[in-house]
Amino acid sequence: MLNQRLSRVIENMQRTSLSQLLVSSPASVFYLTGKWIHPGERMLALLIRSDGAIRLFANRLFALSGTLSVPLTEYDDTEDCVKILADHLLPGAIGIDKTWPSLFTIRLMEARSDIRPVLGSHCVDDARLCKDAAEIQLMRESSQKNDETTLQVINALRCGMQESNVAALYKQISASLGSSKPSFAPLICFGANCAEPHHDTDHTVLKSGDSVILDVGLTWQSYCSDMTRTVFMGTPSDEQKRVYDLICAANAAGRAAVRPGIPLKEVDRAARKVIEDAGYGPRFIHRTGHGIGLEVHEFPDVSATSEIIAKPGMIFSVEPGIYLPGSFGVRVEDLVVVTDDGCETLNAAPREMRIL
Amino acid sequence: MLNQRLSRVIENMQRTSLSQLLVSSPASVFYLTGKWIHPGERMLALLIRSDGAIRLFANRLFALSGTLSVPLTEYDDTEDCVKILADHLLPGAIGIDKTWPSLFTIRLMEARSDIRPVLGSHCVDDARLCKDAAEIQLMRESSQKNDETTLQVINALRCGMQESNVAALYKQISASLGSSKPSFAPLICFGANCAEPHHDTDHTVLKSGDSVILDVGLTWQSYCSDMTRTVFMGTPSDEQKRVYDLICAANAAGRAAVRPGIPLKEVDRAARKVIEDAGYGPRFIHRTGHGIGLEVHEFPDVSATSEIIAKPGMIFSVEPGIYLPGSFGVRVEDLVVVTDDGCETLNAAPREMRIL
Repeated sequence: MLNQRLSRVIENMQRTSLSQLLVSSPASVFYLTGKWIHPGERMLALLIRSDGAIRLFANRLFALSGTLSVPLTEYDDTEDCVKILADHLLPGAIGIDKTWPSLFTIRLMEARSDIRPVLGSHCVDDARLCKDAAEIQLMRESSQKNDETTLQVINALRCGMQESNVAALYKQISASLGSSKPSFAPLICFGANCAEPHHDTDHTVLKSGDSVILDVGLTWQSYCSDMTRTVFMGTPSDEQKRVYDLICAANAAGRAAVRPGIPLKEVDRAARKVIEDAGYGPRFIHRTGHGIGLEVHEFPDVSATSEIIAKPGMIFSVEPGIYLPGSFGVRVEDLVVVTDDGCETLNAAPREMRIL
Repeated sequence: MLNQRLSRVIENMQRTSLSQLLVSSPASVFYLTGKWIHPGERMLALLIRSDGAIRLFANRLFALSGTLSVPLTEYDDTEDCVKILADHLLPGAIGIDKTWPSLFTIRLMEARSDIRPVLGSHCVDDARLCKDAAEIQLMRESSQKNDETTLQVINALRCGMQESNVAALYKQISASLGSSKPSFAPLICFGANCAEPHHDTDHTVLKSGDSVILDVGLTWQSYCSDMTRTVFMGTPSDEQKRVYDLICAANAAGRAAVRPGIPLKEVDRAARKVIEDAGYGPRFIHRTGHGIGLEVHEFPDVSATSEIIAKPGMIFSVEPGIYLPGSFGVRVEDLVVVTDDGCETLNAAPREMRIL
């Protein structure tokens, strides 16, 4: 399986005339070696050449010797790791992983004036884009556990709770279902905080009349889930009801647009059109979705400018939102996997308006 | 206070003839603006010119308009954010933050062939290096809460617990003491796992005869703590006792070496010498410590090659360790702040051998 993955990366290198590539993101290194390595600020790089040669460069601290099927060069904290890596490179273009800290790219350019960094992530992103049957099954299970956790959390919501209490409850329940960690810090918003798409969960207290956004996910055997539900504490206002219905319609329209062969911008268009037609276009201030798998946000974007063509096995979110600053916000997010003739929605948690 | 910090950064730019700098790490942006922004995969950059002009570039999603004292340029997910930033740059060298994803550095080079990326983090790292009195007080409080949490966790250790249970307990107790989150995922190791300095906390079960490493920290009002204690479940072997005593002596020697004016490599030397003299040199496979403050690992290194000179207000860890693969490991870590004539140790948790 790892060999097949590596072959796909090398094909992508050959197709784009890239003779050498540095893969550094922990998820991509796991994808190609089966090993999670979290380097912190230390240098991690998997060097792949288009002739099939491969070598991992990692700090000795991570005790990788004997644990990998790829050749390994270790360094310690007193050695110049960039110099050690630079000695293995060919002159000319070198593909660099988009998330590699600039420290290493800039130092590599200083050490080797005969190399030219170019973006190389597409070679691995493309290989990771379509999940195989085993990956899709793990993504299903991850979302099933996320559904179950979220419903338990919603059932426990009471006025007087703090956002941070709800986040802690999510972590506790997801751990009890066997998830080793959330896929991102649970994003819990009450009332006006719902109008900030990236609010920092804080000590705000839940009160009657609040909208409640739960944007949550967990990891299951390395695969990430990510779902958003919005519920209401007490009877919602007419505008809350109108906005909620709109968002559910936009979410459904986005998912209904998914089928092999369409560019992802059409998914964005389908969801966004529902919101724009109702006059709320300027209040939907982010892309419609993002790829997901080993990472909670991965290639590709589902945005107004995404030309990426949907193919069976691609998994991404559909998550339209409307944000009314100072008042409230609504977002409803599901994950979908592209199938041969449309898509399968991985989340089964109800989308009917829930009034607590 | 923010103006003083910015002035120090600009002085550092002028001293190193850098006319423009992009600051991107969330901690450095917080240090200079008072605002935590976690951009995920989106572009965040604070452009500082040596003439004092400053401007933040951030995605509209983060709803920063009206919340900052610095000029703001927002972009949305459909815009080419690198192009927007590139239009604000002068020709010539531009300082880049060491952690900025290479995606942005490489795309900036493509957009502007007349700019030349160089490492620029030193301008902010140097400003953040010596903590002021208010920062030192928060670092003290953070370590006090870490001491208290860790001692409660140690008192609760029982054979049959899993590493993951202990990590969960640390999170629960630190939260109950008011910490919003750990400063890093609690690193809990039992027995042979102690021989991996960066072991991933897992479901290993605690049994009699095990060494137990607790490498843990929390955040308190944005400031990080980080401490390691090693304890023993049941009577330790003679070698466990010998190694434990050695590490305590190395930790003490490292801390005793700290005073203003010495290069940090002398702190590393003092701790390492104790271990080398006893014949365990090859088993101490990492640097002696690292800077800490708004980030759990920040500039500078305390390593065999660090020429950085200790100055009052600098805070770093002293954390020698000995790792015997397949058997056990010991590490004892404390934070110190450099004072006018030596150092103050921020951790008060006992270092006497603890047998449970």
